[in-house]
Amino acid sequence: MTTGVRRRMGVEERREQLIGVALELFSRRSPDAVSIDEIASAAGISRPLVYHYFPGKLSLYEAALQRAADDLAARFVEPHEGPLGARLLRVVRRFFDFVDQHGPGFAALMRGGPAVPAGETFTRGGASGTTVLVDGVRQAAYVQILAHLKIDQPPARLDLVIRSWLSLAESTALVWLDGRRIPRAELEMQLVRDFAALVAVSALYDDEMAGLLRHMLADEPTEGPFADLIGRLMTLAS
Amino acid sequence: MTTGVRRRMGVEERREQLIGVALELFSRRSPDAVSIDEIASAAGISRPLVYHYFPGKLSLYEAALQRAADDLAARFVEPHEGPLGARLLRVVRRFFDFVDQHGPGFAALMRGGPAVPAGETFTRGGASGTTVLVDGVRQAAYVQILAHLKIDQPPARLDLVIRSWLSLAESTALVWLDGRRIPRAELEMQLVRDFAALVAVSALYDDEMAGLLRHMLADEPTEGPFADLIGRLMTLAS
Repeated sequence: MTTGVRRRMGVEERREQLIGVALELFSRRSPDAVSIDEIASAAGISRPLVYHYFPGKLSLYEAALQRAADDLAARFVEPHEGPLGARLLRVVRRFFDFVDQHGPGFAALMRGGPAVPAGETFTRGGASGTTVLVDGVRQAAYVQILAHLKIDQPPARLDLVIRSWLSLAESTALVWLDGRRIPRAELEMQLVRDFAALVAVSALYDDEMAGLLRHMLADEPTEGPFADLIGRLMTLAS
Repeated sequence: MTTGVRRRMGVEERREQLIGVALELFSRRSPDAVSIDEIASAAGISRPLVYHYFPGKLSLYEAALQRAADDLAARFVEPHEGPLGARLLRVVRRFFDFVDQHGPGFAALMRGGPAVPAGETFTRGGASGTTVLVDGVRQAAYVQILAHLKIDQPPARLDLVIRSWLSLAESTALVWLDGRRIPRAELEMQLVRDFAALVAVSALYDDEMAGLLRHMLADEPTEGPFADLIGRLMTLAS
């Protein structure tokens, strides 16, 4: 294998290639609209050979979406250094990089994945496979946010704010993809401020959330992404 | 039919009964977990007779979910009178009434509906039927909000705020259902304030949104649901 002689791809290598080709096609059109023939053609192999590596269209799609989900979850990892607002902004930027790169594939994933051909239903334990994938990504984001806030057992109101902000981030990205009518840099900043705003609204009712807001803002520099919003939010919560 | 003689139910009447029974069962357990046998038993008829009125489990479930979606959309209609914050609060309360009433059925609908048995895939034009239903409800809410704001052609940033707030409302309701750890009255007020907060964050970047925020707040009474948040948000946007 290391003699320099040209060789056929091994099984894993071919599977990797097909996953890469599928994700490349999904970045331009919805998985629904991409056929196995196109994937075979783009990979330079025959359609029957694709089925040799993946028993059905759905198993290839599942592998590709799993790869994309793992890629996205990896982007949430951020060093625990510096102000929280700047950390969150860097993660949100990488999230938008992913959304930009995967386009229609991301949209399909968020909307429950490709329409499933009859008889090939993609389920695990009752929930659809794509729902399981998306929930895994959401959970990865949730865990990262808690870790940055240094909180093990989130109170109910914080749990709600994080989960609902994650859905806000998803829907903001989906609306952005649909025409890209607002510059993404503006939306990245907006999402960081939205997080602080949701914490602040929740802090109106709850001392614990007010304490969290003060903690979040303690080390924020005046030039950071929370800055123009945050001073005023602080007075809201006090 | 009007002679007072006891009679068998007509087709439409029986279908209505079965839909009502299904929704009642879905209010306590996920549609996934409810069998046709249970529905037949609760309706006091045989399982084969259920299939006489609905050709498959999925067609009964589709009819029930359509009924629930229509019911929810109807709750969004609110007279165009009085302060906007109070109107939005009344609609959000009716939304929580619905969520409270339908519980697991609402959760299943929002998460893509019941897992679809193989061979009976419920799709329309590529999107799953439940996605179409949910999108119809979202669109109904969207149209109502624009009408109350007296806006025909929403600018991109308003479109984004409304759509992302709707997803915030859905996820807030789903998190609430999962344990009901926060009083719903608090969450109803919170969602109204979240709407104003999202408009205010967007208004930081955009004169048009700042103008909309001023319009939204022009007639708000100091004792209204926007009150404790709004004065401060105004200064944010100015």
